[in-house]
Amino acid sequence: MSKVNKRNTQTRRSFLRGAALSSAGAVVAVSSTAKEQSEALITEAQSWAQELADGVDVTPYGLPIEHEGDVIRRNVPWLTADAVSSVNFTPIHALDGTITPQGCAFERHHSGAIDLKKEDYRLMINGLVDKPMIFTYFDLERFPRENHVYFCECAANTGMEWAGAQLNGAQFTHGMIHNMEYTGVPLRTILNEVGLIAAGDLKDKWVFVEGADASSNGRSIPMEKALDDVFVAFKANGEALRKEHGYPVRLVVPGWEGNMWVKWLRRIEVTDGPVESREETSKYTDTLSDGRSRKWTWAMDAKSVVTNPSPQMPIKHGSGSLLISGLAWSGHGAIKRVDVSLDGGKNWRIASLSKPGEKMAVSRFYFHTDWDGEEMLLQSRAIDETGYVQPTKTQLRAVRGLNSIYHNNCIQTWHVGKNGSVENVEVS
Amino acid sequence: MSKVNKRNTQTRRSFLRGAALSSAGAVVAVSSTAKEQSEALITEAQSWAQELADGVDVTPYGLPIEHEGDVIRRNVPWLTADAVSSVNFTPIHALDGTITPQGCAFERHHSGAIDLKKEDYRLMINGLVDKPMIFTYFDLERFPRENHVYFCECAANTGMEWAGAQLNGAQFTHGMIHNMEYTGVPLRTILNEVGLIAAGDLKDKWVFVEGADASSNGRSIPMEKALDDVFVAFKANGEALRKEHGYPVRLVVPGWEGNMWVKWLRRIEVTDGPVESREETSKYTDTLSDGRSRKWTWAMDAKSVVTNPSPQMPIKHGSGSLLISGLAWSGHGAIKRVDVSLDGGKNWRIASLSKPGEKMAVSRFYFHTDWDGEEMLLQSRAIDETGYVQPTKTQLRAVRGLNSIYHNNCIQTWHVGKNGSVENVEVS
Repeated sequence: MSKVNKRNTQTRRSFLRGAALSSAGAVVAVSSTAKEQSEALITEAQSWAQELADGVDVTPYGLPIEHEGDVIRRNVPWLTADAVSSVNFTPIHALDGTITPQGCAFERHHSGAIDLKKEDYRLMINGLVDKPMIFTYFDLERFPRENHVYFCECAANTGMEWAGAQLNGAQFTHGMIHNMEYTGVPLRTILNEVGLIAAGDLKDKWVFVEGADASSNGRSIPMEKALDDVFVAFKANGEALRKEHGYPVRLVVPGWEGNMWVKWLRRIEVTDGPVESREETSKYTDTLSDGRSRKWTWAMDAKSVVTNPSPQMPIKHGSGSLLISGLAWSGHGAIKRVDVSLDGGKNWRIASLSKPGEKMAVSRFYFHTDWDGEEMLLQSRAIDETGYVQPTKTQLRAVRGLNSIYHNNCIQTWHVGKNGSVENVEVS
Repeated sequence: MSKVNKRNTQTRRSFLRGAALSSAGAVVAVSSTAKEQSEALITEAQSWAQELADGVDVTPYGLPIEHEGDVIRRNVPWLTADAVSSVNFTPIHALDGTITPQGCAFERHHSGAIDLKKEDYRLMINGLVDKPMIFTYFDLERFPRENHVYFCECAANTGMEWAGAQLNGAQFTHGMIHNMEYTGVPLRTILNEVGLIAAGDLKDKWVFVEGADASSNGRSIPMEKALDDVFVAFKANGEALRKEHGYPVRLVVPGWEGNMWVKWLRRIEVTDGPVESREETSKYTDTLSDGRSRKWTWAMDAKSVVTNPSPQMPIKHGSGSLLISGLAWSGHGAIKRVDVSLDGGKNWRIASLSKPGEKMAVSRFYFHTDWDGEEMLLQSRAIDETGYVQPTKTQLRAVRGLNSIYHNNCIQTWHVGKNGSVENVEVS
C-alpha cells in the first residue's frame, strides 16, 4: 500500500508549526485560547456529553443555529429612495464554498415581494408567434427540465465604489450577488411550443419579459440569447424559489444583469425590436463623462473580491498561517484564474480555485500565506476564459467616468492593519 | 445569425400539443384549469399587481413561502426505540436538482443534536502520532481548504424494504440521504500537522473518530481512506453546518455510510487496528441468512429512486406529456447511466442525467414520456463508473437474505394507477 505512504509524504507541510513546536510528545494545544481552556474542554465530560439532547421533531425545517445569527441579509437604508426597503445584501463575508443558501441570498424588488400561489400562476406567451398560449404552473412542470448553477448579480453591485470607498464590508460592496443551482425549462422549449414561425427570420427578433408584481419590471432580450441559455426556473438549490426570489417562477438569464431575471414571470412577448421600457432607458444604462449613456450593457464583466479577511471579518489570530478566501465570476464564461496581491497590486500571485471554473457560475478561490503581521493592501483580480482581466478602479474610471451607478467591476482593495482590522480603501 | 435559426429547428417538438391545437391564432389556454380561470388571471390586474408588497426587512434570513409548508423533514415514530425521535427523512419527493437544502436534509442522532459553540469546540488528535495536539475551531480555519459536493446516506436507508413494501413514499423509503457542498480541511493535512512518523508503516494503521455528544458514536476508518478523501468540514452549501448536522465541525467520509460522518467531531486517534466499537459491531453490520454478519461494509453501493411520480407525488394532470424524475448515487464513484422502466423491469430505456455524474455525489435523472393513461410499474436502475448495476430486490435477497437492516440498494417499484395515484409495491 505504497499509495498511502506516498500521499502522506507529498503533503507533508506544517501550517501551525509555531505553537506546535513548544512541546513534543505530549498533547499540545495549538492556540493560546486552547492552551488556557483545552484540558477541561477535551478531557472532562462536558454537559453536552452527559445528556440526551434535542430529537428530530424540534425542527421539521431547520434554521441556522443561534450562534450564526449574524449571518443574515442586511440593507443600507439610505441607498434607495423607495417607500419600503427594496435591496439587501448577501452576507458573502461569512459564507464559504460556491453555493449561496436561498435564506441569505440578496433581494432587490421594484415594488416589493408579492405572494403568488402556484394555483394562481399564469404565463402568457404572445406577440409574433403561431399560437399565443397561456400556461399554468402545472403545465410548465410537464416539459423536459434542466439544472444549472448560475450567479445572479445586480447591475448596481459595487455601484457605490464609483465615488470612492464608502461601504465598509464585502457584504455591502459586493453582496448583491448569489449563486444557486436552478431547475427549470429552457425558454427555447416553450417558445417552440407556441411556434416561432410567425416571427419569420429570427435574427432581428426580441422577447419582452415582464413580471406579475406592480412594477412589472419589463426587459427586452435579443432572440439569440433567448434561444441559447435563458430558462424558466421553478426551483433553486433543490427547493421551491423563495417568495423574495420570484416564487413560483422566475426567469434565469445566465451571466446577464440581475434586473433581467424577471421574478413572478407573467408574460413573454415575441417582438420585432426592443421595447425600450422604463427599466432599460431611465435605469440600467451607464452614463459616461460626456453625458451620453451606454445601453444594452447586459453581461456582467469578470470580477472578484476577497471575502475573508474583509472589514466584517478581521484577522483575530495574529501573524502566521493565514487563509485568504474570495469569490470570482464572469458573465462571459468560466473563470480561468484569480490572482491575489498583498501589496496593492505591485506583485501578484496565483490563487487556487476550489474547482475548475464553470460558465456563468461563481468560483471560490483560496490563497494560503504566512502573514508577517505587517500592514497589507489586499486585492484580487479575476481572469475569465475570454482572456479578459478585471481592471483597476483607475482603469475603469478612465473609460467610464464617474457618473455611472452600474457595472462597476473594478479591483477592490482592503487595508489590513497590524492589529488585523480591515478597511475599505482606494489605491492610486 | 444562422446559429439562432438552427437552434430553434433542432429543438422543434411540441410537448403539450393535445390542448394547444384546439384553437390556433388566438390565445390558447393549455390545461383545463387554465381554460376556466386564465382570462381574468392574465388579463385583469390582480391585487398583487396593484400594491406595494413586502420590503426586504421582512426576512433577514428567508424561509420557504408558506405554500411550501409541506416540504419538511418527517419522522416515522415507530422506526426507532429511542426515548426521543432520532431519525427523520429528507422530502426528496418534493425537491429537484441535486443540492439538498440544509433546512430539509435528514437527521439521524444517537443521543440528540447538541448545542456546541465554536468557542467551546476542541479537536484532539492523539494515538500513534509525533505530537498529539488539540485544535480550536479557529485553528482549523487557518489550514488550506477545499470544497466538494458529496452525498451522505444512512446505512439504514431503504432498510424497511428488506421485509416488503412497507412505507408509502419516497421520502420514507429513500429519504435518509442528502447531497451538499462541503467546505473544510482534508484530514491528511491535519494528520500531517501532528506527524504520522510514530505510526511507522501506515498500511496497517487506522483512525478512530468520535463525536462530542453523549453517544460519542466512535468509528474506525482505515488509513488509506483517511489519507485519501476524508475531510473535516465546517460549512455545507456555503453556510455553517446546522446544529443537527454537527455544528461547528463534522467529518465527511465520501461514499461511505453516514454513521461514519461523525458530527461534533472531538477526537481522532491513530491506532494500529480497528477499535471494534459498539457502533461497528452491535450495529452497522449486515446479518446474513445463516446468522453470520458482514462487517466493514462501508461503501454505499449504486442506487436510484424515482422521486416524481411517487406515492406522495401522484400524477394529477392525466395522460399525455409526463416528466419522470429521480435521484441516483454510488459510493464507488460517479453515476454513469440511469435506466427507467415503465413495466416493472421488462423493458428499460436510458434516462438523461442533468449533468455528467460526479464522484460520490447525487445525480438527477429525467425521463420524458407520453403517458397513455394505463397502469405502470415504474422503476429506475443506476449504473456507476465501475460498471456495477443496481440489483433487483430478488437478486439482493438471494445474496443477503432477509435478516439485514442496512445496505439495501435494490431497485424500487412504484405502481401507478389509471387515476395517477402511486403506491409502493414489489414485483417478482
